[in-house]
Amino acid sequence: MKLIPSIKTQFSDWYNTVVEEAKLADHSAVKGCMTILPYGYALWENMQKELDKRIKKMGVKNMAFPLLIPYHLLAKEKEHIEGFSPEVALVTHAGGEKLDEPLVIRPTSEVIIHSYFKKWLRSWRDLPIKVNQWCSVLRWEKRPRLFLRTTEFWWQEGHTMHSNKEEAKMQVFSAISLYRDFCHEFLSIPVIMARKPDYERFAGAEETWTIEGMMQDGKAVQMGTSHLLSESFVHALDISFQDEKKEISLPVLTSWGVTTRLIGTLIMVHGDQRGIIFPPRIAPIQIVLIPIFKKSDSEISLVLEAIQHCYSQLSLLGFSCEIDDRDLSPGSKFYEQELRGVPFRIEIGAREVSLSQFTLFFRDTHERRNFPFALFSDSQELRLFFDSEVSNFHNRLYKKANDFQGSRIFYSSSLAEFGPRLNSENGFCVTHWCGVDERRFKEYQSSVRCVLEDDQFFQEATPAICCLHDSVCGRDLKKILVARSY
Amino acid sequence: MKLIPSIKTQFSDWYNTVVEEAKLADHSAVKGCMTILPYGYALWENMQKELDKRIKKMGVKNMAFPLLIPYHLLAKEKEHIEGFSPEVALVTHAGGEKLDEPLVIRPTSEVIIHSYFKKWLRSWRDLPIKVNQWCSVLRWEKRPRLFLRTTEFWWQEGHTMHSNKEEAKMQVFSAISLYRDFCHEFLSIPVIMARKPDYERFAGAEETWTIEGMMQDGKAVQMGTSHLLSESFVHALDISFQDEKKEISLPVLTSWGVTTRLIGTLIMVHGDQRGIIFPPRIAPIQIVLIPIFKKSDSEISLVLEAIQHCYSQLSLLGFSCEIDDRDLSPGSKFYEQELRGVPFRIEIGAREVSLSQFTLFFRDTHERRNFPFALFSDSQELRLFFDSEVSNFHNRLYKKANDFQGSRIFYSSSLAEFGPRLNSENGFCVTHWCGVDERRFKEYQSSVRCVLEDDQFFQEATPAICCLHDSVCGRDLKKILVARSY
Repeated sequence: MKLIPSIKTQFSDWYNTVVEEAKLADHSAVKGCMTILPYGYALWENMQKELDKRIKKMGVKNMAFPLLIPYHLLAKEKEHIEGFSPEVALVTHAGGEKLDEPLVIRPTSEVIIHSYFKKWLRSWRDLPIKVNQWCSVLRWEKRPRLFLRTTEFWWQEGHTMHSNKEEAKMQVFSAISLYRDFCHEFLSIPVIMARKPDYERFAGAEETWTIEGMMQDGKAVQMGTSHLLSESFVHALDISFQDEKKEISLPVLTSWGVTTRLIGTLIMVHGDQRGIIFPPRIAPIQIVLIPIFKKSDSEISLVLEAIQHCYSQLSLLGFSCEIDDRDLSPGSKFYEQELRGVPFRIEIGAREVSLSQFTLFFRDTHERRNFPFALFSDSQELRLFFDSEVSNFHNRLYKKANDFQGSRIFYSSSLAEFGPRLNSENGFCVTHWCGVDERRFKEYQSSVRCVLEDDQFFQEATPAICCLHDSVCGRDLKKILVARSY
Repeated sequence: MKLIPSIKTQFSDWYNTVVEEAKLADHSAVKGCMTILPYGYALWENMQKELDKRIKKMGVKNMAFPLLIPYHLLAKEKEHIEGFSPEVALVTHAGGEKLDEPLVIRPTSEVIIHSYFKKWLRSWRDLPIKVNQWCSVLRWEKRPRLFLRTTEFWWQEGHTMHSNKEEAKMQVFSAISLYRDFCHEFLSIPVIMARKPDYERFAGAEETWTIEGMMQDGKAVQMGTSHLLSESFVHALDISFQDEKKEISLPVLTSWGVTTRLIGTLIMVHGDQRGIIFPPRIAPIQIVLIPIFKKSDSEISLVLEAIQHCYSQLSLLGFSCEIDDRDLSPGSKFYEQELRGVPFRIEIGAREVSLSQFTLFFRDTHERRNFPFALFSDSQELRLFFDSEVSNFHNRLYKKANDFQGSRIFYSSSLAEFGPRLNSENGFCVTHWCGVDERRFKEYQSSVRCVLEDDQFFQEATPAICCLHDSVCGRDLKKILVARSY
């Protein structure tokens, strides 16, 4: 095992090391692509299961759309192709022949899905149409990072079509709210939900909503987005329908998605010096059981029997458990299971057996507590106990992340003042801005993460000042959040 | 709605029409690729759920491997690249630049997975390694057909590595048996499980097992395969490990998969003139509920209330239901719901309400029976009733398909004799063959589907005769199954 770099001073190395040592993902032969290893994939399956349930509850149907898009179709919407063109992969030969037209491996599926929408849409009775697909997409990435930025990534992409803009806006808001709630309730991550500034919108969107999370190094990650698409998509594909008054009307489109990047944020928000801490509602393994004995120990069979009993009872209740009975010292197992972020550890040795108890270790607080073994004889009580410990653990993680985030968001009215602080204080800055000269934020490796509502964060009493042009700005100001980001 | 072509005389048109009209899948802008529509995808999700559970029970872990394979990696195993080279799609440009080496969109993932196997394998303690992925793959298809042959198709591909050949053979057999059981228990399809003849093996396999199903036009479909890979894969990637005696040893590899083609076979095995008949354990919608009233009917609210009550009770028990309350005549709804293969239909009208009963229509037998409405007041009884009707339905479908298959398999000792019969009698022929001149089967558009065991099908008392070279053959003979196929 590699030594874990300091989470305080070498955050980036710390991240790379724990992802690798916990065997969550690995690099691939093609630069920028990754393989998701079993432990990481089990986590993704847990996320998919919960998200899929919530997405279906919005009345959305799952489908599978083709991987390949004819180039001319992607090129139909101008902003869209300009945005994605530098990132796409082109298929030029197939079936032993050169193709007449190159095919694009989907970087996202708007145009292909819209071409079906056009086919399906006749009258207002067909609306709304709401579909989703789970798949991988490709965007050529020059500075790849496992989970955070990879050329191929896995995601869900929801696409809907509505008869009017109000309903479409509701859908955009429902989707981003779904993501926010999922982050809060399953990932124990507080996120800031708001609109993207115009210059950071999705290529072809009229409005993009985002949820932004704060990592432990004070950088932001865009954890999910939801877009109200601009009318140009509808024009590009010439989609229309007959409305209730039998008049020709244009539908309104939305799209929204979250990706395997969420796995990266989980690690960067909750980890500590020992490694990963997975929130217990989403952890691939919730409880690891470790039998403790010396080789000569005469009570081995009693210990193993007790461990097996705990495992069976917990599995029966649906908790995801694993017995770690490898031929290693307990110390090495503790080290490894803590690194890979298993929330709870049950330790049982001869001492526990003789006292009819078990030891429970909490990954987040590093606390060790003893409980009576009798708990495992009453499945109802056992369920209550672990359900409540799962909730407590979840709440502690959420509170810690939320307190951290609260302590790192500050107000400033001048980029010259807050620019250096973004770096030295590792935080987010709330400020005001007129929407002009966005490049200047780059001088401090930062960007406008989102446009806030007036009641989000600080309530400024004095008249607002533009952070770029001081009080001489004269333009209408927006309240914004500025941060460095991944 | 299109008229449904005759299932007896225009089987192929019948298939295309019902797939299209039932909205299971659609063609895409890229020739040979398809989009799986919500109704088809819900079916695939049901299949995935059951298969995934069974695959995990074999100790297999899910993962996600990259879509793209460097060309030189695919080319490492000679037979493999020769087999797949005419079918692959090549990415030559990405991220705005021409690539140094073309990348292949995976037609299957052996080589990419084996390169990880090599990385993970140190000693015998690491074995066996068993992984699986659900994804889509691409094989350029010149004569595409929805579900049966598409350039892009969805599948699961399992890959394992073992310390010795016996264990690997067991895995190959476990996987193909899993597929056979799934077909029997969920798809109500009897399949013939046996080895492929050498000339029909997977590119790079030492032995390929198959399950073959008989469609209603007497053609065969290969519904799943499981391969013992040849040692050349191990040599090509130079994979080895230290065995228990601390000596260098070579591992043995397997791979196995089933695809969205299964959806096509379901339709071709069970359908009738009215359309599709989905087996009830896998049907996307198991029960459709249709309220029956005239517009003027004064009992509308009573009827709708009764329908809603049935729907709630059945949904609570986990049955997949749908109320069809569209503004259409009952007749049109019956037509459409029968076409799309919903196994059970509940009809409730004023008459049913007044008699406190409901009408249940069985899609397979076209039978209509009345049952007391009181059934819906006792959830235990309701569950028992529908569980048993689901089983009965499943068994009827299986028996029908099995009887059909049994009646269409005949024995013959000469290709000249049975060749024309494959076409005129729409069946499979059991015969004997020496393994030489396989091209001659093509004269009758047929092929050797599999090599049978002596106790499969007919027990011939007389000495076997080679179907190609008569009694002068002189070579060792194998009992084989010959058929036309998709």
